[in-house]
Amino acid sequence: MSTRELIVLGTGSQVPSRARNHNGYLLRWDSLGLLFDPGEGTQRQLTFAGVPASAVTRICLTHFHGDHCLGLPGVVQRLSLDGVARVHAHYPASGQEHFERLRHASVFHETTELVEEPVTGDGVVARGEFGELSALRLDHPVEAFGYRLVEPDRRTMVPRLLRCHGIHGPDVGALLRSGSITVGGRTVAVEDVSVLRTGQRFAFVMDTRLCDNVFALAQDADLLVIEATFLDEEAELAHRYGHLTARQAARVARESGVRTLVLTHFSQRYSTMTRFHDQAAQEFDGDIVVAHDLDRIPVPRRPRPE
Amino acid sequence: MSTRELIVLGTGSQVPSRARNHNGYLLRWDSLGLLFDPGEGTQRQLTFAGVPASAVTRICLTHFHGDHCLGLPGVVQRLSLDGVARVHAHYPASGQEHFERLRHASVFHETTELVEEPVTGDGVVARGEFGELSALRLDHPVEAFGYRLVEPDRRTMVPRLLRCHGIHGPDVGALLRSGSITVGGRTVAVEDVSVLRTGQRFAFVMDTRLCDNVFALAQDADLLVIEATFLDEEAELAHRYGHLTARQAARVARESGVRTLVLTHFSQRYSTMTRFHDQAAQEFDGDIVVAHDLDRIPVPRRPRPE
Repeated sequence: MSTRELIVLGTGSQVPSRARNHNGYLLRWDSLGLLFDPGEGTQRQLTFAGVPASAVTRICLTHFHGDHCLGLPGVVQRLSLDGVARVHAHYPASGQEHFERLRHASVFHETTELVEEPVTGDGVVARGEFGELSALRLDHPVEAFGYRLVEPDRRTMVPRLLRCHGIHGPDVGALLRSGSITVGGRTVAVEDVSVLRTGQRFAFVMDTRLCDNVFALAQDADLLVIEATFLDEEAELAHRYGHLTARQAARVARESGVRTLVLTHFSQRYSTMTRFHDQAAQEFDGDIVVAHDLDRIPVPRRPRPE
Repeated sequence: MSTRELIVLGTGSQVPSRARNHNGYLLRWDSLGLLFDPGEGTQRQLTFAGVPASAVTRICLTHFHGDHCLGLPGVVQRLSLDGVARVHAHYPASGQEHFERLRHASVFHETTELVEEPVTGDGVVARGEFGELSALRLDHPVEAFGYRLVEPDRRTMVPRLLRCHGIHGPDVGALLRSGSITVGGRTVAVEDVSVLRTGQRFAFVMDTRLCDNVFALAQDADLLVIEATFLDEEAELAHRYGHLTARQAARVARESGVRTLVLTHFSQRYSTMTRFHDQAAQEFDGDIVVAHDLDRIPVPRRPRPE
């Protein structure tokens, strides 16, 4: 069975606290390991989570504020130390200089091939068997991109329909290969005994004001990880600094048909988090997770046809 | 009463573990706050230690391997965020480019004046009321410097001798100001009723093989913080990689007349640390501290004359 889960490495904005490290999120998605926004201390948080650095296959930076990228040097050096052959890195192209500084911040023996893939505008940044990874521009004082992972739609056989048409055993494979099969004199097409399952979607939305791309990133996401720096009371502050409130994040989830909403990137001014859940729940009736460091959050599975 | 203590922020070499963060040491010395070798996560370790970033007045880097400097960007940004006006930074001049990268690693609003004071060779790097801060070159594959803080020698009145000469009250101040005083027809000089107390000494010796400068740094130190990456069994490895064993560190302490020896920078291959103490104790019979993260180690006070 494939593993699809979010490993939360840090949930604090701007400065760390005793309870919250800077940002850091590892999405394990089958054989992919997408590391989003490694803030300072991410290397050690991976250790606390019991995950080797070799689990990382791609690094995605939303922007170059320190709480989203200062863990990059440690992670990059650890990849070389652990003998990882190659990792891809996506980041706003306007931050190329910062990326280079982070990548070469200290003296080490670099053996990992770090493939630089600067993001220049809205669009697909990587394609593979896993599907498509896209980046869309956000609305923050420095250039920032959110990310969206979309699995390809796939046909899934419906056991009930296969039984109904008397197809079983090796015939199923033959049907899949040729697109149709003749059973008892009748031709049965794949479409007759299967449904098209839309692929799973994951979205990662960090520092931003509300904008169209936030909704586009979140559209139909099974799991949406989104910043919720502030509560209602600080809505004006949130707008001024280019951030979201928990309520705004939940509105995105509702309007975009999200299944599980993960709130994170909290201002350290808040010591108790129940009101983040409460204000979000007034907008969104799906699953809400107010993230804590080292949470492991499964990407919710879709029900299989019977 | 002045506070002189070492706050240990991290004690691990190369990679962090659950128990040990990367390096990081804050020496509080009266009004000084010397931050040595801020490894990744130092900003948060300061929080765990309950020390504000504003306690830092100088930053001293021994060299530019990641475990000794990747916490610099976070600390520098935090200083600006916390409104600190000015901090001095000492580091090997050959690492100027790395220093610049670390200093400007991510996007932030810099308000703290960070005074760059690259170290070009053996000598005094800062002088003040506190005394002298010196740097001496070490023996490591990349250029590295150890640091030594020496308080000025000061005359201290000996109460017993003052009583003997019948000097008390305002006469003590008069004697100090003029260098001598006449009491009962006899002239008493400051030297007659005081002793010269040598100033306290602190030494910080990171990644190095044994070399003359290690002993010079440690000479008569009240507190010596020194790397002890390996045990005897890995002595050959230590030499190859430019490191010390616990036994070598203790030999330095013995031959240099150190009072308290603090061992740190341990290879993560070791899970129990009793043998570090044992091997060091075979060489040195002074106080030995096998450092743990968040230890607070007082600089041992000297007995006052009675």
